[in-house]
Amino acid sequence: MRKFAIAIHGGAGTILRSMMTAEKELSYKQALEDAIKAGESVLRKNGRSMDAVEAAIISLENNPLFNAGKGSVFTNEGKNEMDASIMNGKDLMAGAVAGVQNIKNPISLARAVMEKSEHVFMAGLGAQEFAKKINAQFIPDDYFFVQHRFDQLQEAKKSDTMILDHTVDKEKKFGTVGAVAIDVHGNLAAGTSTGGMTNKKHGRVGDTPIIGSGTFANNKTCAISCTGHGEFFIRSVVAYDISCLIEYKGLSLKKACDIVVMDKLVKIGGEGGLIAIDAKGNIELPFNSEGMYRASKTQDEELFIGIYKD
Amino acid sequence: MRKFAIAIHGGAGTILRSMMTAEKELSYKQALEDAIKAGESVLRKNGRSMDAVEAAIISLENNPLFNAGKGSVFTNEGKNEMDASIMNGKDLMAGAVAGVQNIKNPISLARAVMEKSEHVFMAGLGAQEFAKKINAQFIPDDYFFVQHRFDQLQEAKKSDTMILDHTVDKEKKFGTVGAVAIDVHGNLAAGTSTGGMTNKKHGRVGDTPIIGSGTFANNKTCAISCTGHGEFFIRSVVAYDISCLIEYKGLSLKKACDIVVMDKLVKIGGEGGLIAIDAKGNIELPFNSEGMYRASKTQDEELFIGIYKD
Repeated sequence: MRKFAIAIHGGAGTILRSMMTAEKELSYKQALEDAIKAGESVLRKNGRSMDAVEAAIISLENNPLFNAGKGSVFTNEGKNEMDASIMNGKDLMAGAVAGVQNIKNPISLARAVMEKSEHVFMAGLGAQEFAKKINAQFIPDDYFFVQHRFDQLQEAKKSDTMILDHTVDKEKKFGTVGAVAIDVHGNLAAGTSTGGMTNKKHGRVGDTPIIGSGTFANNKTCAISCTGHGEFFIRSVVAYDISCLIEYKGLSLKKACDIVVMDKLVKIGGEGGLIAIDAKGNIELPFNSEGMYRASKTQDEELFIGIYKD
Repeated sequence: MRKFAIAIHGGAGTILRSMMTAEKELSYKQALEDAIKAGESVLRKNGRSMDAVEAAIISLENNPLFNAGKGSVFTNEGKNEMDASIMNGKDLMAGAVAGVQNIKNPISLARAVMEKSEHVFMAGLGAQEFAKKINAQFIPDDYFFVQHRFDQLQEAKKSDTMILDHTVDKEKKFGTVGAVAIDVHGNLAAGTSTGGMTNKKHGRVGDTPIIGSGTFANNKTCAISCTGHGEFFIRSVVAYDISCLIEYKGLSLKKACDIVVMDKLVKIGGEGGLIAIDAKGNIELPFNSEGMYRASKTQDEELFIGIYKD
């Protein structure tokens, strides 16, 4: 039996201690702890990394603090359009959805695409139809109505800019959530879920549902979930790049993460970060932005929760 | 000045000499030659690989023989839903669209996403709205009506199967089109365009619009355009995998193509092929299916056109 480990993120961006209240910080930390525990409890019972990743992400999607599921930001049209993807490192099976609305847990819909369709990636109305067919949980618009998100949209519309997440002060923050895990059977899994960008144009797809860019898992190498300015992550094929640096160049997970997040992405202006677990259970949580909501837990070690750089 | 080169494909699959008439073969060869010439004439005038790739793909999209643009297959709902992507190896800029309807040339819309939006990837109705905004060429449904495509849909519906392309005899054929080129300035570019699968579920997205899977270009390594059973190409991140084998493992383009197409894809049941040009102008056109419509032309060599394995 291998030792299990799990890591999660709740988005990266300009997250400064000076802008945070003690109360707000506490609620983020509690939310991260809850999500880690949801995944950990699966792994501790010798459950599968795929189930742990889904459980952790559902916890984050159900929390209005994060830009995914319930807390999704508003598009230019005042709608919530969500993307998600999930991948199993054991058999390289994967599922993804883009532009879905009124779905309570997009990560579970992505998993259903993987397990119950012949496809990997379903988008828009077609993905909605698939969701109906498999009896996914639909939920009315008002579930997704979070006042500060709506205020953000009005503000973004005024200035005709896109806000990359839910912060009201125009700082960049990428509110994607994600989880990666290794179970006692040695299987890796990764998943990512997002509500996109405030005031984004209808139809924009970021890296979150793109296998290879936002999410990747292979038992031979690692499991990766990204958060950041998606366009740069797509062009750099970030998640698979780390896997290739390990597989083809023999780099450690840490070295591969350093090169991709702290050098390659920085050079093209790609702000963000990612969470990673390799086949040996090593965890890396690199980001090149001011902060990243993140947490990790291994079988034997204490829970780690981080928000800022230091 | 470097020497220019261009390669194109018109889809891979079960394409057997025994099933082909002389007349049909001639029309495919003519169509491939026309497309190569459209790209070559750009490159010969010291034009950009990006423009050559777009010109060659437009030629293929406008030809009803191929499953892209005019010749796109029908979805389950009797609609034409098209995907395309394009990437510039010089600056790693990229553009992609998925699930667009009534667009004459999806490859040009993908390029417009790259050049005229802040995004890389636009899908569905949002992509249509973007197309309207930039005055893309819309064209009525009847332009896309090709009788044998419609007959295929009826046949596929009867058996409730998906047909992966336009062949009426239920053989597998993947009718994606694509082009890769290197120009005299040493810049690589790649593009891919498809009409998807006959009787596919509305909303299914294959590898064609996925940067890293269906399309990739980097001046440091190579330009790749794929055609095949998209789900397997997404899970294998095929296009970027070849780039990584060159960059991180120091393999030749030929060796990288052999590993990915003839070994890795075969092992997971991923049928199809790809076209590739590396930074030195070497061309590879590997496929693991019975045949692939393909052609290539370098500055000094004769035009090559191939359909079958031998």
